[in-house]
Amino acid sequence: MLRQLSHELTIATRHRGLHEFTQEVEAWVGRNQFKEGLLTIHLQHTSASLLIQENASPDVRRDLEAFFKRLVPDGDPLFEHTLEGDDDMPAHIRTALTTVNLGIPVRQGRLALGTWQGIYLWEHRKAAMRRKIIVTLTGEP
Amino acid sequence: MLRQLSHELTIATRHRGLHEFTQEVEAWVGRNQFKEGLLTIHLQHTSASLLIQENASPDVRRDLEAFFKRLVPDGDPLFEHTLEGDDDMPAHIRTALTTVNLGIPVRQGRLALGTWQGIYLWEHRKAAMRRKIIVTLTGEP
Amino acid sequence: MLRQLSHELTIATRHRGLHEFTQEVEAWVGRNQFKEGLLTIHLQHTSASLLIQENASPDVRRDLEAFFKRLVPDGDPLFEHTLEGDDDMPAHIRTALTTVNLGIPVRQGRLALGTWQGIYLWEHRKAAMRRKIIVTLTGEP
Repeated sequence: MLRQLSHELTIATRHRGLHEFTQEVEAWVGRNQFKEGLLTIHLQHTSASLLIQENASPDVRRDLEAFFKRLVPDGDPLFEHTLEGDDDMPAHIRTALTTVNLGIPVRQGRLALGTWQGIYLWEHRKAAMRRKIIVTLTGEP
Repeated sequence: MLRQLSHELTIATRHRGLHEFTQEVEAWVGRNQFKEGLLTIHLQHTSASLLIQENASPDVRRDLEAFFKRLVPDGDPLFEHTLEGDDDMPAHIRTALTTVNLGIPVRQGRLALGTWQGIYLWEHRKAAMRRKIIVTLTGEP
Repeated sequence: MLRQLSHELTIATRHRGLHEFTQEVEAWVGRNQFKEGLLTIHLQHTSASLLIQENASPDVRRDLEAFFKRLVPDGDPLFEHTLEGDDDMPAHIRTALTTVNLGIPVRQGRLALGTWQGIYLWEHRKAAMRRKIIVTLTGEP
């Protein structure tokens, strides 16, 4: 019979960039001993994203950051919304270009990620922030 | 015991831009009295998107629109697909750069959105359109 | 009573571009005779995406490809991560700008896609690849 569980995680980011949290999610899934299911992740913010990306080479993360910095420049004169600084509106746009929801299958008690896939919180603000994430697992215990 | 319900919403957009529909979704969730669950939203179109974004400052919505207009210019000579006008292909690209699916947890009978998160239909065509959305709720009544 | 099933698909891509696989998914949903439900799709890679897009005009696919090729140029000197060639880092960025997860409702035994919506694997590498996808169906048989 299917069951559903949810859990809240808080991640403290120190600066702009990709922060991996695959292990925190994997550990929670493992503790709950679901054999098969679907894990969904929701980030409760509008200036940071969730991203599944390459977890092997750190230069992939650097290049992602460099590309987004060039695509959505801080302090672009196009922006009216500059209340919290020159990275305020770029953070909203970078979030719109990516996502705040993920869905990952669980098989044989583990996240069915590909060999090179890691789960990241992408902080788009330059300052340290506390970010809240809700994970939900729907499946067979 | 888990149950699942779905429902169809139609949203009439008047012009290009972000149209909030958080309240329609929240009202449907409330009427169905699910305590815990997962709400998924699917938009049945290829020239409009679903977006979770900042629901406080209208200038965030204006800046998002301005940025996407500059990133994907109407009437760009790169495009072959211009059958329905100069905003036809840009609407498909803006949709590809965002998403047509969302997934939001429900906790204690309410959408577990962050303080500043609203749910938007982003119309990418310049004309008024009727857009169909299917919401599905999987959880504990 | 709700049930959940999952299945693994392998798609052999021949080159960069959009490869439709709506029929494979529809066929699997049909064989399992779920009346109502939610289908989720996860792609286990970081250099290819899932996309719901227009399935009528081939020029929409050509223009999407042309736009992304211009937005994220192969061999851009910005990139450090060039281990597997000039399309390596662009493939990761194109994946970050789109998604590797989809969620589509099932109604009356069929995928509730819009009239013009098809499900695509977007291969971002130039070489032929084998891509693994996991589909999960949660619903009422």
